Amino acid sequence: MDIGIIGFGGVSKAFIKLLLDKEDSLNKKGLDIRVKYIIKSNGGIYNKDGINIKEIVDRDYSLVDSDFKEDINIHNIVDNSDIDILVELTNTNIETGEPGLTHIRLALENNINVVTGNKGPILLEYKKLKSIADNNGLALGIGCTTGGALPSINVGNYDIAGSEILSIEGILNGTSNYILSEMYESEVEYKDALNKAISLGIAEANYKLDVEGYDTASKILILANVLMDANLSLKDISIEGIDKVKKEEILEEKARGNKIKLIGKVYNRNNKVSAYVRPEVITKEHPLYFVDNKNKGVSYSTDTLGDISIIGGASGTVNAAASILRDIVNINRGIK
Amino acid sequence: MDIGIIGFGGVSKAFIKLLLDKEDSLNKKGLDIRVKYIIKSNGGIYNKDGINIKEIVDRDYSLVDSDFKEDINIHNIVDNSDIDILVELTNTNIETGEPGLTHIRLALENNINVVTGNKGPILLEYKKLKSIADNNGLALGIGCTTGGALPSINVGNYDIAGSEILSIEGILNGTSNYILSEMYESEVEYKDALNKAISLGIAEANYKLDVEGYDTASKILILANVLMDANLSLKDISIEGIDKVKKEEILEEKARGNKIKLIGKVYNRNNKVSAYVRPEVITKEHPLYFVDNKNKGVSYSTDTLGDISIIGGASGTVNAAASILRDIVNINRGIK
Repeated sequence: MDIGIIGFGGVSKAFIKLLLDKEDSLNKKGLDIRVKYIIKSNGGIYNKDGINIKEIVDRDYSLVDSDFKEDINIHNIVDNSDIDILVELTNTNIETGEPGLTHIRLALENNINVVTGNKGPILLEYKKLKSIADNNGLALGIGCTTGGALPSINVGNYDIAGSEILSIEGILNGTSNYILSEMYESEVEYKDALNKAISLGIAEANYKLDVEGYDTASKILILANVLMDANLSLKDISIEGIDKVKKEEILEEKARGNKIKLIGKVYNRNNKVSAYVRPEVITKEHPLYFVDNKNKGVSYSTDTLGDISIIGGASGTVNAAASILRDIVNINRGIK
Repeated sequence: MDIGIIGFGGVSKAFIKLLLDKEDSLNKKGLDIRVKYIIKSNGGIYNKDGINIKEIVDRDYSLVDSDFKEDINIHNIVDNSDIDILVELTNTNIETGEPGLTHIRLALENNINVVTGNKGPILLEYKKLKSIADNNGLALGIGCTTGGALPSINVGNYDIAGSEILSIEGILNGTSNYILSEMYESEVEYKDALNKAISLGIAEANYKLDVEGYDTASKILILANVLMDANLSLKDISIEGIDKVKKEEILEEKARGNKIKLIGKVYNRNNKVSAYVRPEVITKEHPLYFVDNKNKGVSYSTDTLGDISIIGGASGTVNAAASILRDIVNINRGIK
């Protein structure tokens, strides 16, 4: 199987390393993955016989060598049409979706399957992209966009097939959940917990999208649109983050045996799908009560299979990379 | 899609009702299921244009009418070869696997996909059956055999694809888990909790297979053989049930904040897969700590996706039937 990688941040690098580490075990399962393109914003590498990824890992992911050409971009992939899957991992932009949106659209229009971890294009244009994919008999793998290693899309697509989803509820943002857990456990104010998250590298530079609820909102919207056939965008839902949660509220609920969690929820009432993101008090009976620290979890309420919850899935670039590989392995099996 | 149903107990009846209830929503998704055969141990019904299942539900699942013929059996299905999927739901026999084993083998040898909820044949002969299916390009859907509505096989097959399973741990028997929860909550002896389970209809007539650990063992073995490429049979593993658990032990652990749960576990150590079933003390940090009452849960430890747990899935004939439908929907999508 021939692939191209576009975008060259932490997940792409971890993915290349993972391909190297898993080479033998993938070969044993009949999957031989050749990387033909690695493209970043200012150019890239193309090798029609497959790039030597061991060399790239060995020289600490430096792409600047004799093979690097400034004019290599998505159009080379489209023109050559010599890969089976485009792995799209450019930075997320939840306002325009670009440049990922164009990359994904061009690939699908030109008979190339896509696997992506880029929330922007999926949040904004899933329906359109999916219909291009369907019309061309292609797969659009988006498992990484809604929790990385946590297989939330897969569970909704395959594990509850034949059943109607009544609602989906999730703790979907590791940073926010860590901060709330820290406030609960160490009984500190939001600011102190945030600072600890920053100092530990759990909260990233753009942590505002996390703590203000936009990351959770993006994920729950993707789940709603993909799994409940909704057509929601960010402006359709109320979003409240954790940045105004007070220590006192958390301690008051703790005394009652409850917790406050940042919940993203989407539900179908009278054939209308609605969604929200907000900090909610949850009791010990709630299926996500024990999803603490950086952990994530999603709970699906269904008509015939009961409530099914999926919890865990490590957070990190390696694990996000493994979720990209998961989609590739499943596409190789013919799963769309 | 044309199907035949063999075995006519509670799950089969619930499945027929479910097909009726879900007819519209399945049609909307392009899936039109016709039931051509309903076969029980002493004969059955065959209609090449599709049986009127509404009539059967309306007359309280009585099959005895002018259409019923005593000489209808699996051989008619094989001879006619006019269905896409055989739904095999005869009673489980974990010693011989029969009659399900013969039904499944004959169907697969004759180019008919199989979906089954029958643990016996899968426990005893999964590898052989799967290889017949693979050679003929057929699907062998077994999601119902390891927890019914709980999608334990699916999660292992698709949701952690590309990742290595290091171990699988499960609370897989609803009756045992209910009894242990009752001993914990009401602080009663095993006998009293068992009697309550019997009086509530949670423990069935053959509850010994549940409380002595054989049901859990069957399920964990199927997970091991299907997902970890093991080749274990019941005689290879130590099985200890909950029938010797004392109230005092539970209360002692409760005082420490722990619980005792009937755990089935399979793990890979130095490329050797081993398994056991036994009551274990688990702490609050354990991913299955909060799987109480009739609930079930499975936790997968993986090399690159972290630990992933799936919890819930209602227990009952309707939910088991929904898990049969899930496999059918996925087979219809081309998933093998």
